[in-house]
Amino acid sequence: MKIAIIGSGAAGSVFAGYLRKGGAEDIWLVDLYKAHMDKVRKDGLILRNPAGEFHLTGFQTAYSADEIGIMDIVIIMVKATQTEAAMRTAAPCIGPETVVVTLQNGLGNDENIKKFIPDDRVIFGCGNMGTELPEPGVCVAKPAKGNNMFFGPSVKSALADAAGTYLEKCFAAGGLEPKYYDDVRPYIWRKATSNSGFNTVCAILRLKIGEVYDDSNGVALVWDIWKEASDVAEAMGIPGIWEYMQKEMQNVVTNLGDYYPSMAQDMLMHQRQTEVTALTGAISDYGKKHGVATPTCDVLTRVVKAQEANYAKQFVK
Amino acid sequence: MKIAIIGSGAAGSVFAGYLRKGGAEDIWLVDLYKAHMDKVRKDGLILRNPAGEFHLTGFQTAYSADEIGIMDIVIIMVKATQTEAAMRTAAPCIGPETVVVTLQNGLGNDENIKKFIPDDRVIFGCGNMGTELPEPGVCVAKPAKGNNMFFGPSVKSALADAAGTYLEKCFAAGGLEPKYYDDVRPYIWRKATSNSGFNTVCAILRLKIGEVYDDSNGVALVWDIWKEASDVAEAMGIPGIWEYMQKEMQNVVTNLGDYYPSMAQDMLMHQRQTEVTALTGAISDYGKKHGVATPTCDVLTRVVKAQEANYAKQFVK
Repeated sequence: MKIAIIGSGAAGSVFAGYLRKGGAEDIWLVDLYKAHMDKVRKDGLILRNPAGEFHLTGFQTAYSADEIGIMDIVIIMVKATQTEAAMRTAAPCIGPETVVVTLQNGLGNDENIKKFIPDDRVIFGCGNMGTELPEPGVCVAKPAKGNNMFFGPSVKSALADAAGTYLEKCFAAGGLEPKYYDDVRPYIWRKATSNSGFNTVCAILRLKIGEVYDDSNGVALVWDIWKEASDVAEAMGIPGIWEYMQKEMQNVVTNLGDYYPSMAQDMLMHQRQTEVTALTGAISDYGKKHGVATPTCDVLTRVVKAQEANYAKQFVK
Repeated sequence: MKIAIIGSGAAGSVFAGYLRKGGAEDIWLVDLYKAHMDKVRKDGLILRNPAGEFHLTGFQTAYSADEIGIMDIVIIMVKATQTEAAMRTAAPCIGPETVVVTLQNGLGNDENIKKFIPDDRVIFGCGNMGTELPEPGVCVAKPAKGNNMFFGPSVKSALADAAGTYLEKCFAAGGLEPKYYDDVRPYIWRKATSNSGFNTVCAILRLKIGEVYDDSNGVALVWDIWKEASDVAEAMGIPGIWEYMQKEMQNVVTNLGDYYPSMAQDMLMHQRQTEVTALTGAISDYGKKHGVATPTCDVLTRVVKAQEANYAKQFVK
């Protein structure tokens, strides 16, 4: 199958690497990061993961999706805030049988894509792994143990299933533990709920995960976000999130207590736009749609948006 | 009347100065700030205000309230978080006819005092002015124009009215525009509502008042706090706050747009405990008591409390 990855930064390149390693033969990487695209086209891609370092060749690359022709699978991997813009520039490579896949983090990415194509040609999901792009042509993956790549169709169809099972086969042959689910939403909501709590609260409080956990008000904010997300998921026909989160708290604190999650890194270290709209912001949006109150998510999303719009003005001592 | 001011920092000293200037003859200043107490006892108090600089003498001072005897009026001016501790140490100077007055900023100070004495001997209120204590023995007042000192009885009584009208007379003769109201709550709620919005939001966002006003999410948080406070006040039988706040917004932004309010100063510049429990925290508490939802105040109070408990750990770049 012909596959294009629109947005081939750290995560996009890692996914491309696993697919190629797993046997996918016709992969286009598309990104504005010229040095990376040129290096991959000339010398191939280095994928470093816990199993070793792999030199993968045979990719095609482009700076824009309008020069690559019609694809069988288009994987959207731009920042969540850029999805609609990416779908517009990707229009030339999306034909009547193309399946569009989002493996972006967070909630609501599928909604953004369904504004452009029918929902029986949309697959959504995400990977459970850390990724980095330390230099052009080199990407690093730290996949979680167990099921670390989960995705499924927005609405089941022959086209979606063909694309999904192909991706599942290639990811698995490449070394991941992927699963193509009929209903992937519980897995996406588990991850997004977990991230929404600690990402947003750590960013606002300027604390590590363990430090938030140790503060009674900080951890109460995380629990409140998790409860609101679980209530919204329940209203959407996705039960069991709250029960899952009871166990998740101890896992997150044990494994990641000493870290600043990505939103805190975006906000505190890099002063760049965060993924809040795909996390607490998306929980608020889904809550409105399904009649579930999400006051904590509403308020904290506003705080993050106001902060990211005013980095240069913020008082910092 | 014999008056003690428990907590004679900037605001306590300013109020003492105006009372003495206005003819009060028997005033005790009580504070742990030894250099200030010693200077006032030896050389008197300098009060600087827009009308000039006044050298006031004849005060008595003490480091603790247990050495000064029974008072007619005890004015509590410690930090809001210290009120209950102050009432315990002030016990020796509170007799069966003593009226206790809180002129502390914020909401709920009267509740803390009524835990210790009957409510018909409690007066509460506050001043509408900036105060400073630049050096021992010197205090500075910048009173607002118009009614700038407002207070009233918790429950009307002969004792409370005698104390309240005496204070009103002395403050007025001293140069303020005080008023002793039968029901002072509307005036306290106006000021506390205004402060709760900008104090809390500016502190969390690390922005000046005008910068918050210019950000759609920032100003929405202020409006949300104001609406919740107005709803709580309404439920308590204090109508009209919301209508008042409509005009207040433009006044605050015009007059104070370029400033960090006191909570932002406490949090950002001095990393010290804030007055959040007497502002958004108090709105939350009153909301619970009167069955009014205050989600924005609940969430943002948690954020401030978590931040002030973790100043040393916060990531700052």
